[in-house]
Amino acid sequence: MLRSLRDKKHREEVGLYAVEGEKVVSELIAAGHPFEQIYGTPGWGGSCTHPIAEEDMARVSHFPTPSSVLAVGRIRRETLSAGELERGLTLALDGVQDPGNVGTMLRIADWFGFDRVLLSPGCADLHSQKVIQASMGSFARMRTVVADLPGTLAGLRAPVVGCTLEGEDVRDLPALPDAVIVIGSEGRGISGEVRRLLTRAVTIPKVGAAESLNAAVAAAIVCDNLRRALR
Amino acid sequence: MLRSLRDKKHREEVGLYAVEGEKVVSELIAAGHPFEQIYGTPGWGGSCTHPIAEEDMARVSHFPTPSSVLAVGRIRRETLSAGELERGLTLALDGVQDPGNVGTMLRIADWFGFDRVLLSPGCADLHSQKVIQASMGSFARMRTVVADLPGTLAGLRAPVVGCTLEGEDVRDLPALPDAVIVIGSEGRGISGEVRRLLTRAVTIPKVGAAESLNAAVAAAIVCDNLRRALR
Repeated sequence: MLRSLRDKKHREEVGLYAVEGEKVVSELIAAGHPFEQIYGTPGWGGSCTHPIAEEDMARVSHFPTPSSVLAVGRIRRETLSAGELERGLTLALDGVQDPGNVGTMLRIADWFGFDRVLLSPGCADLHSQKVIQASMGSFARMRTVVADLPGTLAGLRAPVVGCTLEGEDVRDLPALPDAVIVIGSEGRGISGEVRRLLTRAVTIPKVGAAESLNAAVAAAIVCDNLRRALR
Repeated sequence: MLRSLRDKKHREEVGLYAVEGEKVVSELIAAGHPFEQIYGTPGWGGSCTHPIAEEDMARVSHFPTPSSVLAVGRIRRETLSAGELERGLTLALDGVQDPGNVGTMLRIADWFGFDRVLLSPGCADLHSQKVIQASMGSFARMRTVVADLPGTLAGLRAPVVGCTLEGEDVRDLPALPDAVIVIGSEGRGISGEVRRLLTRAVTIPKVGAAESLNAAVAAAIVCDNLRRALR
């Protein structure tokens, strides 16, 4: 059962996810994350609900070299409350498929004090090991909601700002206390349906020759510029 | 022989490196990168010096599913010319071990029009598949030099700006047309020896709760702020 939690479909059927590794599990416990079960071998120094032998950990682990801990949490599907997106700052990810980028963007939203991260259903699964690990503990702190972006953003009164290759200079972003910042996928950018709902498009000015920036890097620069405008 | 080029020690002995995959090899060829040999299977649509059979590619490839192309290049160890660091913008990486981060920072330096990237010998090897791949072609365009940082930065007349957790606000960075921006490793930050040589330390203001930012993300924000100051 534990081993099958690496499979998204199975995770959704049982409503549970698993994450393993001393560093990531410690970070989440330190951030107050409520795990249902913590399986630890004798080498695990932290709290533990199910002590297990190293041989058993080797059987359930997906790591070539198993760690001393594997934690199981319950998937909580958060939903948006009415008008929620019109208050505060939202980072919206439109089809970001790389789990490392999704995790890094949770960390960025957390650093810049965003209120929530909105993910389109096409994004990498929030409850995968790679997303949780790349978030460096921010998975436990950030409010995250998976929702259809066009339906959610249509008719919104707050500004919807997209990061594109042909917008206005991001350095001229005004102080927006309530806003949704949309980041598209690395390969295709923001989808056509979402692009039509943007009230503003911004671009990070390029001086050199690279064709694009990594999606998480672009998100961080937009968040930093918005925070600078708001200070 | 080709297969052993995945090993850094072997690469240095023979002075060659290998990179495989249609996307990355195409990007490098498009950027004008001079390869010595290009091994392509019948499925490879680009230029090719050594046509090989799919079975042979499967033998030399490190990919579980081999691609149609593997290119071999000669390692060129560039050295700094006298006074070079005192002119233009340098991104200096101090012990950045994650190859994805090193490649992403080549891409960032390329986007922001930096003149060169300086890497301490403790950084991930520039000629590894992961670094080259994460650079998205910038490996071919950016001038890179591997050098001992304390020895290279000592006595420099250009400002040496380090990204740390306890510096002045990065948004107050002045317009520095010549500067070295130092980024430390994710785990340990900038080493003590290099820290003593900084003429200025900057910090990205935190609003939320994350403990830190990814090294490449931090580098991008500092580069963006410097470019903003220079515009």
